[in-house]
Amino acid sequence: MFRSLRLVQQFNCKLLTLQRVSGRSKLHVCTSRMASSEYRIEQDSFGELKVPVDKYYGAQTVRSTMNFKIGGPSERMPIQVIKAFGVLKRAAAEVNKEFGLDPKLADAIIQAADEVAAGKLDDHFPLVVWQTGSGTQSNMNVNEVISNRAIEILGGKLGSKDPVHPNDHVNKSQSSNDTFPTAMHIATATEVHHNLLPGLEKLHAALAAKSEEFKDIIKIGRTHTQDAVPLSLGQEFSAYVQQVKYSILRVKAAMPRVYELAAGGTAVGTGLNTRIGFAEKVASTIASLTGLPFVTAPNKFEALAAHDALVELSGALNTVAVSMMKIANDIRFLGSGPRSGLGELILPENEPGSSIMPGKVNPTQCEAMTMVAAQVMGNHVAVTIGGSNGHFELNVFKPMIVKNVLNSAQLLGDASVSFTDNCVVGIEANRERINKLMSESLMLVTALNPHIGYDKAAAIAKTAHKKGSTLKAEAVALGYLTEEEFDQWVKPSEMLGPK
Amino acid sequence: MFRSLRLVQQFNCKLLTLQRVSGRSKLHVCTSRMASSEYRIEQDSFGELKVPVDKYYGAQTVRSTMNFKIGGPSERMPIQVIKAFGVLKRAAAEVNKEFGLDPKLADAIIQAADEVAAGKLDDHFPLVVWQTGSGTQSNMNVNEVISNRAIEILGGKLGSKDPVHPNDHVNKSQSSNDTFPTAMHIATATEVHHNLLPGLEKLHAALAAKSEEFKDIIKIGRTHTQDAVPLSLGQEFSAYVQQVKYSILRVKAAMPRVYELAAGGTAVGTGLNTRIGFAEKVASTIASLTGLPFVTAPNKFEALAAHDALVELSGALNTVAVSMMKIANDIRFLGSGPRSGLGELILPENEPGSSIMPGKVNPTQCEAMTMVAAQVMGNHVAVTIGGSNGHFELNVFKPMIVKNVLNSAQLLGDASVSFTDNCVVGIEANRERINKLMSESLMLVTALNPHIGYDKAAAIAKTAHKKGSTLKAEAVALGYLTEEEFDQWVKPSEMLGPK
Amino acid sequence: MFRSLRLVQQFNCKLLTLQRVSGRSKLHVCTSRMASSEYRIEQDSFGELKVPVDKYYGAQTVRSTMNFKIGGPSERMPIQVIKAFGVLKRAAAEVNKEFGLDPKLADAIIQAADEVAAGKLDDHFPLVVWQTGSGTQSNMNVNEVISNRAIEILGGKLGSKDPVHPNDHVNKSQSSNDTFPTAMHIATATEVHHNLLPGLEKLHAALAAKSEEFKDIIKIGRTHTQDAVPLSLGQEFSAYVQQVKYSILRVKAAMPRVYELAAGGTAVGTGLNTRIGFAEKVASTIASLTGLPFVTAPNKFEALAAHDALVELSGALNTVAVSMMKIANDIRFLGSGPRSGLGELILPENEPGSSIMPGKVNPTQCEAMTMVAAQVMGNHVAVTIGGSNGHFELNVFKPMIVKNVLNSAQLLGDASVSFTDNCVVGIEANRERINKLMSESLMLVTALNPHIGYDKAAAIAKTAHKKGSTLKAEAVALGYLTEEEFDQWVKPSEMLGPK
Amino acid sequence: MFRSLRLVQQFNCKLLTLQRVSGRSKLHVCTSRMASSEYRIEQDSFGELKVPVDKYYGAQTVRSTMNFKIGGPSERMPIQVIKAFGVLKRAAAEVNKEFGLDPKLADAIIQAADEVAAGKLDDHFPLVVWQTGSGTQSNMNVNEVISNRAIEILGGKLGSKDPVHPNDHVNKSQSSNDTFPTAMHIATATEVHHNLLPGLEKLHAALAAKSEEFKDIIKIGRTHTQDAVPLSLGQEFSAYVQQVKYSILRVKAAMPRVYELAAGGTAVGTGLNTRIGFAEKVASTIASLTGLPFVTAPNKFEALAAHDALVELSGALNTVAVSMMKIANDIRFLGSGPRSGLGELILPENEPGSSIMPGKVNPTQCEAMTMVAAQVMGNHVAVTIGGSNGHFELNVFKPMIVKNVLNSAQLLGDASVSFTDNCVVGIEANRERINKLMSESLMLVTALNPHIGYDKAAAIAKTAHKKGSTLKAEAVALGYLTEEEFDQWVKPSEMLGPK
Repeated sequence: MFRSLRLVQQFNCKLLTLQRVSGRSKLHVCTSRMASSEYRIEQDSFGELKVPVDKYYGAQTVRSTMNFKIGGPSERMPIQVIKAFGVLKRAAAEVNKEFGLDPKLADAIIQAADEVAAGKLDDHFPLVVWQTGSGTQSNMNVNEVISNRAIEILGGKLGSKDPVHPNDHVNKSQSSNDTFPTAMHIATATEVHHNLLPGLEKLHAALAAKSEEFKDIIKIGRTHTQDAVPLSLGQEFSAYVQQVKYSILRVKAAMPRVYELAAGGTAVGTGLNTRIGFAEKVASTIASLTGLPFVTAPNKFEALAAHDALVELSGALNTVAVSMMKIANDIRFLGSGPRSGLGELILPENEPGSSIMPGKVNPTQCEAMTMVAAQVMGNHVAVTIGGSNGHFELNVFKPMIVKNVLNSAQLLGDASVSFTDNCVVGIEANRERINKLMSESLMLVTALNPHIGYDKAAAIAKTAHKKGSTLKAEAVALGYLTEEEFDQWVKPSEMLGPK
Repeated sequence: MFRSLRLVQQFNCKLLTLQRVSGRSKLHVCTSRMASSEYRIEQDSFGELKVPVDKYYGAQTVRSTMNFKIGGPSERMPIQVIKAFGVLKRAAAEVNKEFGLDPKLADAIIQAADEVAAGKLDDHFPLVVWQTGSGTQSNMNVNEVISNRAIEILGGKLGSKDPVHPNDHVNKSQSSNDTFPTAMHIATATEVHHNLLPGLEKLHAALAAKSEEFKDIIKIGRTHTQDAVPLSLGQEFSAYVQQVKYSILRVKAAMPRVYELAAGGTAVGTGLNTRIGFAEKVASTIASLTGLPFVTAPNKFEALAAHDALVELSGALNTVAVSMMKIANDIRFLGSGPRSGLGELILPENEPGSSIMPGKVNPTQCEAMTMVAAQVMGNHVAVTIGGSNGHFELNVFKPMIVKNVLNSAQLLGDASVSFTDNCVVGIEANRERINKLMSESLMLVTALNPHIGYDKAAAIAKTAHKKGSTLKAEAVALGYLTEEEFDQWVKPSEMLGPK
Repeated sequence: MFRSLRLVQQFNCKLLTLQRVSGRSKLHVCTSRMASSEYRIEQDSFGELKVPVDKYYGAQTVRSTMNFKIGGPSERMPIQVIKAFGVLKRAAAEVNKEFGLDPKLADAIIQAADEVAAGKLDDHFPLVVWQTGSGTQSNMNVNEVISNRAIEILGGKLGSKDPVHPNDHVNKSQSSNDTFPTAMHIATATEVHHNLLPGLEKLHAALAAKSEEFKDIIKIGRTHTQDAVPLSLGQEFSAYVQQVKYSILRVKAAMPRVYELAAGGTAVGTGLNTRIGFAEKVASTIASLTGLPFVTAPNKFEALAAHDALVELSGALNTVAVSMMKIANDIRFLGSGPRSGLGELILPENEPGSSIMPGKVNPTQCEAMTMVAAQVMGNHVAVTIGGSNGHFELNVFKPMIVKNVLNSAQLLGDASVSFTDNCVVGIEANRERINKLMSESLMLVTALNPHIGYDKAAAIAKTAHKKGSTLKAEAVALGYLTEEEFDQWVKPSEMLGPK
Repeated sequence: MFRSLRLVQQFNCKLLTLQRVSGRSKLHVCTSRMASSEYRIEQDSFGELKVPVDKYYGAQTVRSTMNFKIGGPSERMPIQVIKAFGVLKRAAAEVNKEFGLDPKLADAIIQAADEVAAGKLDDHFPLVVWQTGSGTQSNMNVNEVISNRAIEILGGKLGSKDPVHPNDHVNKSQSSNDTFPTAMHIATATEVHHNLLPGLEKLHAALAAKSEEFKDIIKIGRTHTQDAVPLSLGQEFSAYVQQVKYSILRVKAAMPRVYELAAGGTAVGTGLNTRIGFAEKVASTIASLTGLPFVTAPNKFEALAAHDALVELSGALNTVAVSMMKIANDIRFLGSGPRSGLGELILPENEPGSSIMPGKVNPTQCEAMTMVAAQVMGNHVAVTIGGSNGHFELNVFKPMIVKNVLNSAQLLGDASVSFTDNCVVGIEANRERINKLMSESLMLVTALNPHIGYDKAAAIAKTAHKKGSTLKAEAVALGYLTEEEFDQWVKPSEMLGPK
């Protein structure tokens, strides 16, 4: 029985796709009565192909779905890339209009491109990441959708390429080789600015508030996972605050290269078939549209042949992941228990833990965060390998690279918000437990060194450890000092900084 | 404008989800007139929650969607895991029936679990990978869906937990801690057997056929990317055949540990609350249902606390990816051109390359394959990190680990099929080009050594290189041998093996 | 001042090299009065070069030291590779003798090769890993050393290439392209058999003994780092035993491909310039010499062009590292304390921890092991990348690949021994602490379910958690059962398995 | 025979160590007649230990060599770390003197520390990386060596700890927990500034010169490894120039966090047992000594518990490695041949390629560089994993992290110099070959589009491809244009930029 599951699954995916018809775009056909067998015939240089009548894409897109059956719906070209293409195509149309493109065509392209950018046509982009390494087919998918939608706007016939041709007009002054990396950068910068950085900033603020809230709680420190001298819980959290502060700084530091756009380089970086000024104008238009400081890449050859900028950003995200792993691990260990763990933190309980044991709080937000961190580290290796394997004038690991960078940025951003809202803000200190552990600590003996000398202090600690008793009891029993002296000299609150 | 794209996107995803209503299951509500605002109220120990009336899942699933807004639809728990849970829950119900579970309840659970396994209820599993690291919420999602569907079968009321309770009956003798790893192994083994291995075998056969087809074509060898002594094109392809043969062997060699199932270990591996024999019976039932040689894990503590078996398999997949990268790189370089590359192979043209230049065949299948290879290598690092970070009785990187292993297996399997069908089977040798390069090679001078000695042979080669002429011309011009002798002694066909 | 440190360092390295003169080999020169400025002049096709008179190597080795100043002494070609070359050269000489090589020359080569294999000439191999990717220069280094030492044995003049020529005699029927991968496999298999596997087996035995020793100690389990139902400490350790058992199995499972030797493939895999049977005879001779089951590679083209076998083995080592990380992490956390950690294990104290705090045992062996694990995971990525980037008939990442695989095998082997001897064998259970934690656990309430029902059991646990009291106290206070009943029903020793 | 190699090897290492006696330091013993069996007896809290009389280190160092027999000499703590410790210890002594340390002791410590920093005592640091994860034993090794050397300077007895105590005086106001990370940062910054950056700058200059030299050579472009529209060889090299320019920028961008020093944080980051101002003064003293802009870390808790700064730098090095892989790969492929490759570049011949074939230039420098790149990518994963696994107040993967970061920096720096000197500066363009390939290219037809239209241009190209003829011949034969028109319109030199 189970052996046939895969076939069923593939069949379902197909059904699913067909059911995703949206009424948001004004297709000529009546979508409500459209049967999945209704196609229009289009042709490319390889022959005729059936294109679903309710789709704006054309022959090249359909051909790609036939040639690359790799991975299914979850492996689609990230929608952020499609939207970024919308922004780019709009900008290119504006600049082309300035350089002489028929305003009527340009305006229709702009309107259609805006719809792509706004996510209104998402269902018309079925291609997966695992296609040509230049992303050419996704560029053509965008060109086909925009041209058909523009044709529709101008009252033409879908698939006619008239009056708006996907190559001649929508792709004018462009090549897949410069548009795809441009879309990669727009999509990535947008994801970073609108998801990742706000998420990190939110987390930073929450941790900073906790560090402040906990600043007077003195606790035992732990090095090598073993008991050590005390610090305040606020100090402990201040390390996390610093890590997240630097996470933000690291991501931002990598962005200047991401703001550089390849547009205007066309096929190999020379800018053949573009006009002088095209590259600069497109970049500044995109900057305007997005509110992000995009500029034209100073060297288009590098911008097509390498993706070092995204490898660099991925390196920053990898460092953020490292920070997150540390923070989330600490929080779950400090919150371990309720009785047989460290138990210094009380974590918010978000879902039924066990149906039996009250107080069992599984640190599920920490777990989601650490899984995200591991994924980002893996994504980074994929990006690194893809980035290193470009040849000559074109790196052809583009879709894979952008998929992984976007995934890392999105997961870190989303997980930061989830971790903040569902864990950090609700963390409470278990003051009683913290105080108990701290006061029992043998490490406090360090404070006696200046008063009775190292050797006697060590003798006190050794005896207390051996007997399982307290430092004070043994100090007094050994006759080295009085109870009052002990209380006066051993003050954890005075062990928290230099003197 | 662009700044609001993300919100739109999220909104669309929600719409999309709601539109995915399927008529395949017999919900009480009339799906055609259901508004997305129709909910039933369920409650768990944390309070009341709205559950969509058209969904079989319950409060714990809904709560997880609220607590883990990380990543969106493409980050869902892989459907293969859900189906594997269907198989497991059916098997557990059968064995529980044997151990005394009310047959009426057991049979309803079996029927519902079969529907899950068959993919009929896919839309009822909305949870993402980035949840608790034990996968508890996905186990509960499955329990809720099966219990509600079983209640429906038995004429009960959705959400009533009566007469089929998600925990007491569907999850009987089970814990998330043993069921999730069991589902991980079932899903992985199924993907390997029904997708990856057939894909690799197909590729192996196609390469073997090419190796045979090309066995008499003698060509120049290349070491250090530089000209070297000749071999046959069939010999060159035989290396690829061997790599894929060993790829299959490597994957199979890792499977015995994957066939070991954790089921029966319950919460920490002891098997508390199960019956003696439960673990063995469940494993053998699953083996029957799937046709795969599953057995009960010899040590349940290891099976819960570590996922070394999947790290091991991922290592095998990583090796497969390494082989694929080599093969696809070779093929694209050997097929480079048409005029300024190596040009020894003619690759099938699958889609319009450039609209201008005929003969420009972009090796797009090689590009998809090499991108997949890079992804698999990255996934492997994520799996490695997740696998290494388990603590005590439970590894809590489970959903992330299985997502990556499944992704690697699926991508390699799918890409192998695509690469075979759309590239390998259509590869032709450019015999004219191969012969020209081979016959011009200065390396053939090696064959003269036994006849005229190393020094004279070297002099011939040096002169020919300097003048850009042929070995034969210079050999004769230098008076070392006659044209006839040259033809007799320099026979590439006799340089292909030991003597 | 500090700015000049690097220069000083490089200078020192040079001095160091010169001081490493060994009296173990019978150089004609009197080493005791040799000045480091004494050279002999040798020449290759590029001109004259100065060779230190006390070294057996020749011009090609010297030239490589000039061209590849990358990394310094710690980056030398692993000595295991050099010794493996000794074995290979001896085997080749034996077989060449059989096929007609002058027995006098063959015997001298055999004697010299044996000295290389025995490590008597280690100081004559100065080349670093970062040279040509085929390892050609190290093969020539070996050829030069063996030929000069053989010349010396036969009473000839160093550097004369007479009567033993490095290429014509020592390298007879061989190429760098097949000898270097052969040496890679010999070195790796030897390291695995003589270091890694004994180390893992030692660790396995020690953990198994602890598992047995601890089999009756019942302790609290921990999932999600949180308190869970009990298991025995022996059961907990049994998971580690299983992991190491499988580690051994995984390494062994990868070895069959490592036993395949490329020797006989010569330049591109065809075996040009070898005799029929040479490959098989060399492999069986090496098998005899080493006692390991080496065979000739079934496909020499694959054996030169790819190093999948070592990538596969590296994947196994990566899995071993994952297991080691888990085990060492668990042990250090279970041994954390002495007062503010989990404190269930008492780890051996091997060195002064703090000079102040007695009882502070830093789990240093765990730290060394986890650092090794991280290194192995990193090495694995380097191997993966190198393995994936071969082109055509030769992979040219050979020295880097073998360096990393050997490093991983050696570190894991050495660390296993160190970890066993200095940590595992001395681990003691802190029975008092374990019992205290276990008996306080609220999770034991699970045992009451069959007797008083889930709701009452939950009420007991909730109350005890809230009040910080014990289950027994609240159970009795709530009137649900008597003290005697509690003692009878709540028996952790009966919660360790199925019933 | 071979089975005993390992033992022999270990024995040799031991001999080697003993032979490394240096006359550079003024040991009391006469090194020339010292037998390796001459020891002095020292003791620590664990008992007596034999310390070689010719070594400045003491009991804790010896104990570490006994407890951590992992990896051998090539796995020693990087000497850069030892030298950095010298700088740190000197700076601390200066500041301690300012805060009251006896000037006589301080000055002796300063003198001894300077000798460590200058590499004069390198043979006294035998410990390996695989020790405690805090590097405590290496800190103690430094303390012992400096104290004994200072004692010697002051006329005391080695091992007496009088008048200079390793802990009380040399380690005053310090802890391993803050000194080791300080040394990590000093060593790394020094390596970056004195090796890596100069290497990259040298490479940048050489590539820039080549880009300028080649600016008028027009060649065929290649995308997807296939023929594409032309660019100049100078433009192609300009991409490499840009990559190296950004490599330098990326490394520099990561340095500000590396300049932050942990010194002053002592055991857990609080600065317990230091004086107010100590941290700042030490940092500024180190800045003075090294000429690098070190500052005290703004948050010492983060500086001990995490090594994000080095993970970040490693990410930058990883990006540099990605750039290097691309550049070196391109150069070897463009230089492939001499007859059956692309053959556009002529690479310097540095060593005998084959003894048979003149003109066979193996791109060995490219191979060393790409192997280095793969190693750096692997090192980066090790650093990432180590960085992510810190717990509470201390990350205990310190030695492993710094080893890998230093290795990456050194290898990239050294390889850049080697690659520049031995390859890049000698690269010549094969103008004849470049021109031939370019002029035969069918892609030039693109230039005809504006004159005769797309369809006719395509027909010309298709026919030329089919017949294997030239564009010009077919254009004229088809009657679309004259030979003169062709020459006028098809000018590659006008296809190199926008118009």
